[in-house]
Amino acid sequence: MTPFCAAIDWGTSSFRLWLMSEAGTVIAERQSDEGMMRAAAIGFDVVLERHLAELGVAEELPVVMCGMVGARQGWQEAGYLDTPADLAAIIGKARKIIDAYPRDVRVLPGIAQREAGAPDVMRGEETQLLGLVAQGIGKGLVCMPGTHSKWVRLKGGKVDGFSTYMTGELFAMLSRHSILSAAVDQAAAVSADAPGFLDAARTALADPQAVSNLLFQLRAGQLLGFAPPNEGAARLSGLLIGLELAGVAVRHGTLRDVVLVASGGLCDLYRAVLECQDLTVHVCDASEAVRRGLWRAASTFWTAEERQEHAR
Amino acid sequence: MTPFCAAIDWGTSSFRLWLMSEAGTVIAERQSDEGMMRAAAIGFDVVLERHLAELGVAEELPVVMCGMVGARQGWQEAGYLDTPADLAAIIGKARKIIDAYPRDVRVLPGIAQREAGAPDVMRGEETQLLGLVAQGIGKGLVCMPGTHSKWVRLKGGKVDGFSTYMTGELFAMLSRHSILSAAVDQAAAVSADAPGFLDAARTALADPQAVSNLLFQLRAGQLLGFAPPNEGAARLSGLLIGLELAGVAVRHGTLRDVVLVASGGLCDLYRAVLECQDLTVHVCDASEAVRRGLWRAASTFWTAEERQEHAR
Repeated sequence: MTPFCAAIDWGTSSFRLWLMSEAGTVIAERQSDEGMMRAAAIGFDVVLERHLAELGVAEELPVVMCGMVGARQGWQEAGYLDTPADLAAIIGKARKIIDAYPRDVRVLPGIAQREAGAPDVMRGEETQLLGLVAQGIGKGLVCMPGTHSKWVRLKGGKVDGFSTYMTGELFAMLSRHSILSAAVDQAAAVSADAPGFLDAARTALADPQAVSNLLFQLRAGQLLGFAPPNEGAARLSGLLIGLELAGVAVRHGTLRDVVLVASGGLCDLYRAVLECQDLTVHVCDASEAVRRGLWRAASTFWTAEERQEHAR
Repeated sequence: MTPFCAAIDWGTSSFRLWLMSEAGTVIAERQSDEGMMRAAAIGFDVVLERHLAELGVAEELPVVMCGMVGARQGWQEAGYLDTPADLAAIIGKARKIIDAYPRDVRVLPGIAQREAGAPDVMRGEETQLLGLVAQGIGKGLVCMPGTHSKWVRLKGGKVDGFSTYMTGELFAMLSRHSILSAAVDQAAAVSADAPGFLDAARTALADPQAVSNLLFQLRAGQLLGFAPPNEGAARLSGLLIGLELAGVAVRHGTLRDVVLVASGGLCDLYRAVLECQDLTVHVCDASEAVRRGLWRAASTFWTAEERQEHAR
């Protein structure tokens, strides 16, 4: 198959590239930990070109990207669309990397919520959402778990409003850099049926105001023999996801149906917590969503004919 | 003045020693960052003897200590008294350092709350509380801010119950190891009248369930120009102290009078937040309290006559 474009989800700490055909099929893919942080030190163009060279890609193949690569500290700032933001409009607001760079490389903008009482920003999730819209999911409450989990109200293909929760980052930080490092097995992958996980989520949902005390209890409970040490990671994860959900209820009102955009283990964890709260969960794969969004943008930017023109 | 004993508050990250007369007067003092963590690597006896040698202290001078030095990872485990815990009883439960160590060195135990729903532990604060009781403060709700803030219900000289909040550790961790490091000037000392401090405390008190979102807003608010970057540290501190207070209200019911055991800047911050909630605050200096508690224990262990006996 002839590659049509390279589509890249370039986040803070991860890099993911798909070589795609004009029909949106994945021809090849690459993944690394050269996220914005590491790539800024190495050089964004160096990282990108190395991955493309590994795939034997022609130098005129265009590239579409989303994520933190478009932040101020990224390769080139791609700005924000403001809420309420029409997702289709992010395509028109893409920024070309200037840099005297021969390849046609474009970055999609993020979305900003410029409200004094609820300032918020996203970069990367808007492209997943564009993918959902392309798939016919244009409304509802969308949960996008991660380092900074986003909860988004979609309405008529627009982002009406959203809120971010530091769940993933709190988990990493607390398990590595706090007294809880003694209570959490950092190598353990938490699964949804791990003992203590749902129990901790329910505890945080019942008592979210006291989260700073509940966190300390993780350690004290182990010291005093109330909780087995091997439940530490599952309980910490449960507490933080429960806290997130309690916050979402404050921000977005009573929850019923949730579109969960996630992959792998994280998807299972959120699904379990949402379902134990009697919510109806519709799962969409996060990688598929972002790929679909990127491809949608690429299809708008470039057609096969235009590219043949360009190549001549 | 003749030294009667050395009194030491030996915490996780700090070491503080007072040379005291039999009447409880401070003759000299020393302070360092050789807390339990660093001292465990150097050797607790090495650290202690170096400080005592600097003060020219006789080798038979006895030493009374409290804090994490008595934890399992400390010099010698000193166990816990269980709640409800009579504070005077911690003196009788002190452990002598064995080690074939010639000097008479004793560690006061901590207090444990062995309740399945609210497991908790303290080490060091019980000695401050013993100091309060010696001063005639034997009842009330006591706030002891710090890395792990403790809120204690005192009743008839006993610790009836308590709860711990990770406020100080969360502040340090978030300002150093999270995305908020970009939003917080780590060198800035927060003062109670810093712009944004009380406002953030009120926000967290009104909306504690959403704390994980409020934290992210610190960063997003700066990115979008809603909050000046120089307010970051004050706002983070205000949010976390507000969250602590919201948790305390869940754990200990409506607050009215609070005995605030603290020193320096931290004392001012807590006082300001408590007073803006219309609480009556009685301040006791934390260093004075722990010194008084240690001296009270020393006076029970040793009398000048006994020590002259021993020296012969």
